[in-house]
Amino acid sequence: MSTPLRLGIAGLGTVGTGVVKIVRQKANLLAERAGRPITITAVSARTRDKDRGVNINSYAWEDDPVALATRDDVDIFVELMGGSDGPAKAATEAALKAGKDVVTANKAMLAHHGQALAQLAEDAGAVLRFEAAVAGGIPVVKALTEGLAGNDVTRVMGVMNGTCNYILTRMQSAGLPYDEVFEEANQLGYLEADPTLDVGGIDAGHKLSLLAAVAFGCQVDFPSVELQGIERITIEDIHHAADMGYRIKLLGVAQLTGRGLEQRMSPCLVPENSPLGQLEGGTNMVVLEGDQVEQIVLRGPGAGEGPTASAVMGDVMDIARNFRVTTFGVPAAALTQSKPAKTATPAPYYLRLALDDKPGALAKLATVLGDAGVSIDRMRQYRHDDSTAPILIVTHKTTRDALEAVLKDMSGLDVLASPPVALRIESV
Amino acid sequence: MSTPLRLGIAGLGTVGTGVVKIVRQKANLLAERAGRPITITAVSARTRDKDRGVNINSYAWEDDPVALATRDDVDIFVELMGGSDGPAKAATEAALKAGKDVVTANKAMLAHHGQALAQLAEDAGAVLRFEAAVAGGIPVVKALTEGLAGNDVTRVMGVMNGTCNYILTRMQSAGLPYDEVFEEANQLGYLEADPTLDVGGIDAGHKLSLLAAVAFGCQVDFPSVELQGIERITIEDIHHAADMGYRIKLLGVAQLTGRGLEQRMSPCLVPENSPLGQLEGGTNMVVLEGDQVEQIVLRGPGAGEGPTASAVMGDVMDIARNFRVTTFGVPAAALTQSKPAKTATPAPYYLRLALDDKPGALAKLATVLGDAGVSIDRMRQYRHDDSTAPILIVTHKTTRDALEAVLKDMSGLDVLASPPVALRIESV
Repeated sequence: MSTPLRLGIAGLGTVGTGVVKIVRQKANLLAERAGRPITITAVSARTRDKDRGVNINSYAWEDDPVALATRDDVDIFVELMGGSDGPAKAATEAALKAGKDVVTANKAMLAHHGQALAQLAEDAGAVLRFEAAVAGGIPVVKALTEGLAGNDVTRVMGVMNGTCNYILTRMQSAGLPYDEVFEEANQLGYLEADPTLDVGGIDAGHKLSLLAAVAFGCQVDFPSVELQGIERITIEDIHHAADMGYRIKLLGVAQLTGRGLEQRMSPCLVPENSPLGQLEGGTNMVVLEGDQVEQIVLRGPGAGEGPTASAVMGDVMDIARNFRVTTFGVPAAALTQSKPAKTATPAPYYLRLALDDKPGALAKLATVLGDAGVSIDRMRQYRHDDSTAPILIVTHKTTRDALEAVLKDMSGLDVLASPPVALRIESV
Repeated sequence: MSTPLRLGIAGLGTVGTGVVKIVRQKANLLAERAGRPITITAVSARTRDKDRGVNINSYAWEDDPVALATRDDVDIFVELMGGSDGPAKAATEAALKAGKDVVTANKAMLAHHGQALAQLAEDAGAVLRFEAAVAGGIPVVKALTEGLAGNDVTRVMGVMNGTCNYILTRMQSAGLPYDEVFEEANQLGYLEADPTLDVGGIDAGHKLSLLAAVAFGCQVDFPSVELQGIERITIEDIHHAADMGYRIKLLGVAQLTGRGLEQRMSPCLVPENSPLGQLEGGTNMVVLEGDQVEQIVLRGPGAGEGPTASAVMGDVMDIARNFRVTTFGVPAAALTQSKPAKTATPAPYYLRLALDDKPGALAKLATVLGDAGVSIDRMRQYRHDDSTAPILIVTHKTTRDALEAVLKDMSGLDVLASPPVALRIESV
């Protein structure tokens, strides 16, 4: 058996601790699979003395992750600190510059600096991998870059923030309003310190931008991801959508079209009997579409110690087996600078309107739709006790320009009690 | 860019033709991803002159696949002929002995000769890969051997014969009996020349034995797979199962327990709201469970030109990228010779009985169950017009020994109009 592969791990939170446990408990299995032993030589974290349920005394300790990343006895720098910049980025850069391979779970860092880091890795002959950064335990980066390497990928979609999916499915199952379930999720510790990262779609948007780069061979372009959070979704929307056979999901869609690259992370309606529609709770799902393979759906836990550590170890084992791949599947210099699509592929939309209950109100609404060339597939007016009638409209497939014209014209009407809510219905 | 990787393809049916198309149409994309061009130098098939919708005139032709496999200008022998023995095996062996890498879609060959071929490959320093042999376009071998390499796999399950799933879901949706849907599938060309390979569970059993080897690091042991086909499933079973919230699937389960390795391919009941229960038509699904990752579900097309060629190309691209892995994830000599479990993990069972409609009949039945220690979770007797009452029983979790005692004792009763049907209810 050849020389051991030596890990230096920075960050000993949930995931880091999980990786330490796997390396300690499965030494024989890992060595047999990789053809060489996997060991940990040094670790770094914010606090040294803390009960992590695992013994780290046999590893060298570094206060400074940059020092850890460049140690002579470290072959792979495992970056599990998080944060798009600061120590995580500094240590990753230092490791790569020193020619060391890097495995990271850091979606924010790669969403913001993926291109530069990929280039840095290649220049140094090092490998930079990030399976754990996208959809937790699901080996989706591997499926895209390797399993589907014979495909032109046409679309990737994903529910990749477990907290949002928990909130949306819990609202539906318990019939509770957003605020109440948000507070519940907070109590359960499901939310990031800054909850906007979750419910604003930012965390999931980071992941989508990484998947898009891998799928389409383009530079990571997080700033172009259209972000819309779930904060405005009401329990009424969820019930109305269900009435019409849909579920509301915070869905990421990346698609390369003649108009450029579309990247959206937004609440969408999907058919209730589709795999995405049936996804409950904190589970993640990614849908990969290619010209050869048609559609592959991957489902699994999006977070947690075991699943995320499993993804980190998948990358570590690949490196141990001497799989040397480029970060995003093609050389960094060959990644195209994609043009963000100015508009989205046409789709049907769900509109919720609060219409004043007075004669002629519906006619005004219908005229706005007709003038913009948006035709109605289905419409429902619900019984009501006050002066405002809840109206739901599902449009036929329409361009977003037309939809935006409708929303703009509606804002000028005197018959709506509140701004309309519009959600895309994604064909899945 | 380095030297081209040269393929020799034996077998130009649907899948072979698909591979040729991908290599021809995506030359630039493949070269960019692999870091080297992929070319085809020679092909072999039963008939040379046949319109395949793709031009093969620029490739050298070999009548004999063994000659193809050992050509100096072939780096990877791509075996797409099929058949467990004969030319496929002879050519694969010849290629490996000549130190050439082999990519195959041949589940039967690997189910019967996987261990010997894996050993042969290693001895020659060659790589033997078979992603396309299991679950079509789903990259499940890769997910298990690489993505989940940090896990002790605990169970794998799969619906891996699209024809059987088509038949079972079509029976349910159209309310048609087995024979009629079987004939329909035959007309549609969904069945193998020997339909027993499909409906007898043999084809799916081959796939399960390969997944088990990869999951548990054991030698392929197809002869120990307990096989039960779908031929005895009636439309009544399907309706009764649905009444109780279940779907019937030809489900493969492999599980390593203290009693040995369980491998079953048999019709099972699964909850209708589970991913497996919701799988319709010819689509495949594989469920992977590991101690770290919990549960990963992969869903995709199990057959067809594009999806199967996609899986073949995944293997080709890995080899082009110089990923050198052992066939089943650990060295062939390290694969354990697993002991087949003599009995199955306890589970609830579904029993369908045709009981004579006379006083005391139910008492006799209940006594048999009670004597064997099998308790009843739910029971239904359906209204009937003749002298035989249809009875359904869902037992509590029971051992298969107890179940078999029940079935044996029931066969001695004078109150059953036909032999009982017993189906396992798998927890998924």
